[in-house]
Amino acid sequence: MDKIGLFGTGAVGRTIGTKMVELGYEVMMGSRTANNPKALDWAMNYNKAANGTFEDVAKWADIIFNCTKGEVALDVLRMAGLENLKGKIIIDISNPLDSSKGSPVPLIENYVNTNSLGEEIQRLVPEGLIVKSLNMVNCDVMVNPGTCGGEATMFVAGDNEDAKQKVTQILQQFGWKDIIDLGDMTGARGMEMILPLWLKTWGATKGYHFAFKIVRPNQH
Amino acid sequence: MDKIGLFGTGAVGRTIGTKMVELGYEVMMGSRTANNPKALDWAMNYNKAANGTFEDVAKWADIIFNCTKGEVALDVLRMAGLENLKGKIIIDISNPLDSSKGSPVPLIENYVNTNSLGEEIQRLVPEGLIVKSLNMVNCDVMVNPGTCGGEATMFVAGDNEDAKQKVTQILQQFGWKDIIDLGDMTGARGMEMILPLWLKTWGATKGYHFAFKIVRPNQH
Repeated sequence: MDKIGLFGTGAVGRTIGTKMVELGYEVMMGSRTANNPKALDWAMNYNKAANGTFEDVAKWADIIFNCTKGEVALDVLRMAGLENLKGKIIIDISNPLDSSKGSPVPLIENYVNTNSLGEEIQRLVPEGLIVKSLNMVNCDVMVNPGTCGGEATMFVAGDNEDAKQKVTQILQQFGWKDIIDLGDMTGARGMEMILPLWLKTWGATKGYHFAFKIVRPNQH
Repeated sequence: MDKIGLFGTGAVGRTIGTKMVELGYEVMMGSRTANNPKALDWAMNYNKAANGTFEDVAKWADIIFNCTKGEVALDVLRMAGLENLKGKIIIDISNPLDSSKGSPVPLIENYVNTNSLGEEIQRLVPEGLIVKSLNMVNCDVMVNPGTCGGEATMFVAGDNEDAKQKVTQILQQFGWKDIIDLGDMTGARGMEMILPLWLKTWGATKGYHFAFKIVRPNQH
């Protein structure tokens, strides 16, 4: 069974980590230091969970969920050691939101429209197998899509077909049934550029447990 | 009954014009010249349809659908005469796609992320009542949302509440039932930035009659 790593100790990392433990995987949560209190607290709850530095995780795991903020995602990968990420599947959930700009929060200027954070990560780790997914829903919805109150659509994008296939299987274990493969990593642009609509929809509907569905004719 | 104007003679303009005629409205299709063959051909089909210049339309209509390409939208409004657009409701359907850049087609650099074409149009016509809507579906779906094969969501954004209310009523006449008001015109950013995902979804699903639904808990 694949060994699962997490980059990030926030709500996204903890929620995905817990779900992966429940699914029977061994999981290691990574942070800057080996004694991060949030990571230690989380790992103590489960027999199959541990924690360590980003580097520890990168060396040990087969599949890594990148649950960091977009603003620090590239630095975290460098801390993990780019050579440790060769051949590893990295599921990139991060969003390049620029929190310095006030509301409405835009995306980071260098990673939008003609670029994306997903593509930037793939360039930084050319021998990593990056798959963009899950970034456009709240973490409760990520691991339990029924939380959104109906059947929604999840997307994947990335340059490696085997990696996308493996990630698709994990998404199916989470409960996603309608999964659209947007093709190569340039598909990450659209997946990240939906964030401004996500934020406005959150404001308008007063809830964040929604998800996007592609309603289409003759859907299997 | 409000008099309906159209800017643009393409598939979007003709489809919306025909639907508005069918709904009983008088409709005038505008183009650069009064004798545009596509506009003449279209208008000849209906008793309640006419055609004219952008300026003719701007002077005559109460509500105008902007169905031009994003690349020329601002020029068309200037041709129509900004003074003729005072107090007029303009439903902006245009998308600021930059067709000069190849695939994947990005949005025009100046109208993305921290700006939008909707906001730019509102600034150009400060006394116009601009409402962004409909831009994220194919024109067949715009006027007949059932074409997408299920129930989807439509969005509106704009700075004038009365104008949004009036546009919402037209959307309901088209058949839209789930309409989310994203607030002021900055909501146009998210509505336009969904286009890259639209284009990739078109490629992945091999169909363009899809629409986006916001699946959410406890939806009325």
